[in-house]
Amino acid sequence: MSEPQKIHDTPPMMTITDPAEARAVIRRGAYTGHTAGVAPDFVQGNVCILPRDDAMEFAAFCQRNPKPCPLIGMGAAGDPALPDLGDIDIRTDVPQYRVFRDGELVEERDDVLELWRDDLVTFILGCSFSFELPLIEEDISLQHVERDTVVPMYRTNIACTPAGKFNSDMVVSMRPLRPADAIRAVQITSRFPGVHGAPVHIGLPEQIGVEDVYKPDFGDPPAMNDDQLAVFWACGVTPQVAVEQAKPSLCITHKPGSMLITDKKNIELAAL
Amino acid sequence: MSEPQKIHDTPPMMTITDPAEARAVIRRGAYTGHTAGVAPDFVQGNVCILPRDDAMEFAAFCQRNPKPCPLIGMGAAGDPALPDLGDIDIRTDVPQYRVFRDGELVEERDDVLELWRDDLVTFILGCSFSFELPLIEEDISLQHVERDTVVPMYRTNIACTPAGKFNSDMVVSMRPLRPADAIRAVQITSRFPGVHGAPVHIGLPEQIGVEDVYKPDFGDPPAMNDDQLAVFWACGVTPQVAVEQAKPSLCITHKPGSMLITDKKNIELAAL
Repeated sequence: MSEPQKIHDTPPMMTITDPAEARAVIRRGAYTGHTAGVAPDFVQGNVCILPRDDAMEFAAFCQRNPKPCPLIGMGAAGDPALPDLGDIDIRTDVPQYRVFRDGELVEERDDVLELWRDDLVTFILGCSFSFELPLIEEDISLQHVERDTVVPMYRTNIACTPAGKFNSDMVVSMRPLRPADAIRAVQITSRFPGVHGAPVHIGLPEQIGVEDVYKPDFGDPPAMNDDQLAVFWACGVTPQVAVEQAKPSLCITHKPGSMLITDKKNIELAAL
Repeated sequence: MSEPQKIHDTPPMMTITDPAEARAVIRRGAYTGHTAGVAPDFVQGNVCILPRDDAMEFAAFCQRNPKPCPLIGMGAAGDPALPDLGDIDIRTDVPQYRVFRDGELVEERDDVLELWRDDLVTFILGCSFSFELPLIEEDISLQHVERDTVVPMYRTNIACTPAGKFNSDMVVSMRPLRPADAIRAVQITSRFPGVHGAPVHIGLPEQIGVEDVYKPDFGDPPAMNDDQLAVFWACGVTPQVAVEQAKPSLCITHKPGSMLITDKKNIELAAL
């Protein structure tokens, strides 16, 4: 393998470790960047806000597909609070939002105060940040972290269970690991069912419809060593693809990488 | 893959499900066959009996290498009982014994009453039978079980930690599994650290010095499907190789396949 390259310049980053403090900065519009490494001990969530009727079907889609869509928070219709995840106003506490209408991205905003409606329901989905820290803490080197790149993600032939208008093949993220680390990673991530849990596939990418691991559908291309296996986890991009295909009249999400920071500790998601 | 073939004729088998009853039959010399499938809910152990001085070093070897040498029972010097594993007399309760002197196999016997000495120490090591049942119960098909063959085993380049005269590279057993089953098998066998625990390697056999999976050093050759990975577990043949190389003046073992049946349930070995 060639020397790992740093593909991206390091983007601007907030270094606050307290989640409520980080949200306060974001709430007043003083930070609109990505949240990787912010309050690293705390759960960050993918955001998906939908009108009530779509929300009912989306809730069922998450329930039926917990590996790609691990639901860690759900609001009441019209209520922007998520009290079980912290003192949160979902209209202001995400650094950057994306607004989709009929499946099309129409704008990016720093807050969605003006778009809020009485029928909007907030979903917060767990993300792999929460299991990457326990992996790194056990000295399992993660290439995309080392290289400061975005983890490679792939569309697969693994069918999700549909629910109403929501359906998608599963999108997976891939981390190249040596076999012993892959085994340990299965053990560690099995403890975190709320953030994608154990891998869904290991080795043999073509079996799940990934023809070329060097050409991801999302994220940056990986390097693979001869002594590594491709280890695949269910990915939170899956529900995004399902939403794109369902084309709800309105959908508000976070901008990729700029997620909701919660007061829940990563370790609280450990099943045992 | 060609149609699975039955390589061996099914050998004579005892069908008793109660472990004490099975031992009683064995104790009176009425059964000298293999123990696969006998009292299947109960732990079966590999037997290694050594003189006291060698036993001290062997105990350290097991302690330092718990994956290939999971110690589930240890007797007192000169005492043939193993009360924590059942009403056992280790001199009579194994169907068939092998006696090694200075590392050489000198005889096979139905009991070792005449060979017993005041300085002999019994070691019982867990075996993979105990984790294969939980795998099968979760519908993970094990090829050697389906085909009624002996699991393929390989010498590797994975060094054990030596202790005194005892040393060996690790011997591993291999089960071909589809990736999703391999991941589930890591989860299931991780619960059983007392019987080899999680795999030590997955895929990429050459990485651990296995040049040709179709030519095992022990057991029967496997078939491999294109949709399967080679999954390797530490194997109880490792301490046997260590004993062969150490050449203690006396060593008594079970004949491979004819193990000690204990009163401990397999499920009791589950760590969680």
